[in-house]
Amino acid sequence: MAFSAIDVIVTKRDGGQLSEEQIHWIVEGYTAGRVADEQMAALAMAILLRGMTPEEIAHWTAAMIASGERMDLSTVPRPLVDKHSTGGVGDKITLPLAPLVAACGAAVPQLSGRGLGHTGGTLDKLEAIPGLRTRLSTTEFLEQLATVGCAVCAASESLAPADRKLYALRDVTGTVESIPLIASSIMSKKIAEGTSGLVLDVKVGSGAFMKSLDDARQLATTMVELGAAHGVRTVALLTDMATPLGRTVGNAVEVAEALEVLAGGGPPDVVELTVALARRMLDLAGLSDVDPADALASGRAMDVWRAMVRAQGGDPDASLPVARETEVVRAPRSGVVTKLDALAVGIAAWRLGAGRARKEDPVSATAGVVLHRKEGDTVTAGEPLLELRTDDPDRIPAALAALQDGITIGDTAAPRRPLILDTIE
Amino acid sequence: MAFSAIDVIVTKRDGGQLSEEQIHWIVEGYTAGRVADEQMAALAMAILLRGMTPEEIAHWTAAMIASGERMDLSTVPRPLVDKHSTGGVGDKITLPLAPLVAACGAAVPQLSGRGLGHTGGTLDKLEAIPGLRTRLSTTEFLEQLATVGCAVCAASESLAPADRKLYALRDVTGTVESIPLIASSIMSKKIAEGTSGLVLDVKVGSGAFMKSLDDARQLATTMVELGAAHGVRTVALLTDMATPLGRTVGNAVEVAEALEVLAGGGPPDVVELTVALARRMLDLAGLSDVDPADALASGRAMDVWRAMVRAQGGDPDASLPVARETEVVRAPRSGVVTKLDALAVGIAAWRLGAGRARKEDPVSATAGVVLHRKEGDTVTAGEPLLELRTDDPDRIPAALAALQDGITIGDTAAPRRPLILDTIE
Repeated sequence: MAFSAIDVIVTKRDGGQLSEEQIHWIVEGYTAGRVADEQMAALAMAILLRGMTPEEIAHWTAAMIASGERMDLSTVPRPLVDKHSTGGVGDKITLPLAPLVAACGAAVPQLSGRGLGHTGGTLDKLEAIPGLRTRLSTTEFLEQLATVGCAVCAASESLAPADRKLYALRDVTGTVESIPLIASSIMSKKIAEGTSGLVLDVKVGSGAFMKSLDDARQLATTMVELGAAHGVRTVALLTDMATPLGRTVGNAVEVAEALEVLAGGGPPDVVELTVALARRMLDLAGLSDVDPADALASGRAMDVWRAMVRAQGGDPDASLPVARETEVVRAPRSGVVTKLDALAVGIAAWRLGAGRARKEDPVSATAGVVLHRKEGDTVTAGEPLLELRTDDPDRIPAALAALQDGITIGDTAAPRRPLILDTIE
Repeated sequence: MAFSAIDVIVTKRDGGQLSEEQIHWIVEGYTAGRVADEQMAALAMAILLRGMTPEEIAHWTAAMIASGERMDLSTVPRPLVDKHSTGGVGDKITLPLAPLVAACGAAVPQLSGRGLGHTGGTLDKLEAIPGLRTRLSTTEFLEQLATVGCAVCAASESLAPADRKLYALRDVTGTVESIPLIASSIMSKKIAEGTSGLVLDVKVGSGAFMKSLDDARQLATTMVELGAAHGVRTVALLTDMATPLGRTVGNAVEVAEALEVLAGGGPPDVVELTVALARRMLDLAGLSDVDPADALASGRAMDVWRAMVRAQGGDPDASLPVARETEVVRAPRSGVVTKLDALAVGIAAWRLGAGRARKEDPVSATAGVVLHRKEGDTVTAGEPLLELRTDDPDRIPAALAALQDGITIGDTAAPRRPLILDTIE
């Protein structure tokens, strides 16, 4: 079947529907380099502005999967279930969640990403642990799933290479914020990864890609349908990202908080979301009778965490690195914290060095923000609101500037927002 | 002023207005290679789908002009006036028009283009004349304007280089059909060329970029305003391109028809449009009292043509090349030609070799279509409707296929459409 890239672009530009053949032709051609970057960029912008029908999204996702290998996890002797978050601020949930669900009897084949912009990435966080490797061979990955029950590592280059190439292009062409393209990017990787069940944590609010509940619901519904169409049982929780999760935002500081949760403590919101996601994952794995709260309390989840860190070359007993500089931000008045904005805190952590502007930039393991007060907490004038941590004190002014309008102290607490806003299944 | 290309793209993507600084920054950056092709492609698609305000179009045009040199024609001792057509099928008007207007006392600094797709280009047509050069140095160009009064040649690389680069990009990314981008592309070149007056021939109909009178009127109004803003007195005629102009479509065959017009004959529609455009040009040049019909009848226009061909290295007495193969298409029934579609004939000529699919392709001087009947003419079954000409008989079936639905013979003639549909000034 021979098409012209221009015909495909013009069809979408003029509001038409792309055929299955056109979609496979252009995704294959782009992966192989026959369709130029500038042609795919024009098409991505046309898709962003014109949208795609459910059929087009399904074909697009299938074409992304078909661009590479599909992993075979059939040798893993446990029910397979994974989780994906659309990205937030302070979202370290994967760190306690993967060992927790493994401790309950499932296998969690967690192929994760790195942070970009103000949202952190699980691999960057894990690499704060001395010695830990996030690149595993397929053999190592399968072996670790069978023995430990979970692995958190980078996807291989052969998994959905079209998505890898397209994501890098969208990142520099202002075409990231397209629900069809976000949905197909996430789901193509998760389907190619070979999991049987998938729980999606779709973030909503200032710190998330999706700023409105309607957009988040549309993204979640699209992804749940894509999963079902490819035989992956998929459930989505819509969860609040107007304010950071937990009390830490960064890399080493988030690992430390995950360890608190695995030790049976930790901030209530992190524990609530970890347990809620674990229950959904265990349901999909056919293990609804196992209570994840027990696995946390008994220390079984911590045992799996330690085994996972060791299996990936890390030392679970090593001290985490600590930033050389700390700047404490104090309350300018007494009252109650009525706003602690996720985007503002995310940008502050990013500017301190916890995130990167370009994929090829390094991140700092120690940089980040530690929250002493959260929304709804009372504070007295002069008490610490939060701490900035960095090895590079020159970064502190820009971080303080990011926080400028991000924190409000009032007289009366706003009603507490629920953490879990909706469930799509 | 430092912007990010992504911010500029996202502003337009989300329906915002680009600032003068943003527009100059991105056009300069693109010309210099600091803004990538894929970023400009995404922006072009966003502009096509979101539009631009008159202020944005004015800044965009100014930025394209500022990307290169602006010619200084102040040494030419005659009033300067030029013409530009948005492109049609059988549109050889520049060939008789430039010498005609020069014969009436103006100077016509015609920097022309090549054909792309089914629309022919003036330079391709002229090059059918043995020996004729369309690349002139600035010195040669100025000298010829002063002595002969007209020159038809290629624009130098230093004239609006941003437009040259952007046009090539739009051509492969499905972003040609944007009125703001078409208007700024045409007008940036004509303004940089240094003419004082400009008559635009905006084509409307199946064989033109603009299929509807409304779109053509919008494009014409935008260009007339751009000209006025840059001190170029500009008038636009909207003219019919539902059916080909004249009786020939191709390169050598169109030169032959232009010679008929210069000799005082030629098809009535070509003569009508040539004289109407000449009158408008002479008005702008302050030469309204000169009648172009006289200059045609007296042979003065032909004298200027011969001088121009000689000045550009061509032999005005040389025979034009003739195609080796001719295929006659005959009327399947008797009646009156009610439709002879410009696009169908244009594609047929293109497929015979008269046009190119890519800028770097060669064109055939001899290929083309000669029309024996035009819309409104009666025909008897078996009489010739038209002839296909080519050196490559393998091209004939594809040309015949293009004509399949392009010709209708009925019982009664449709009312004749006017050739000149409107004037914008």
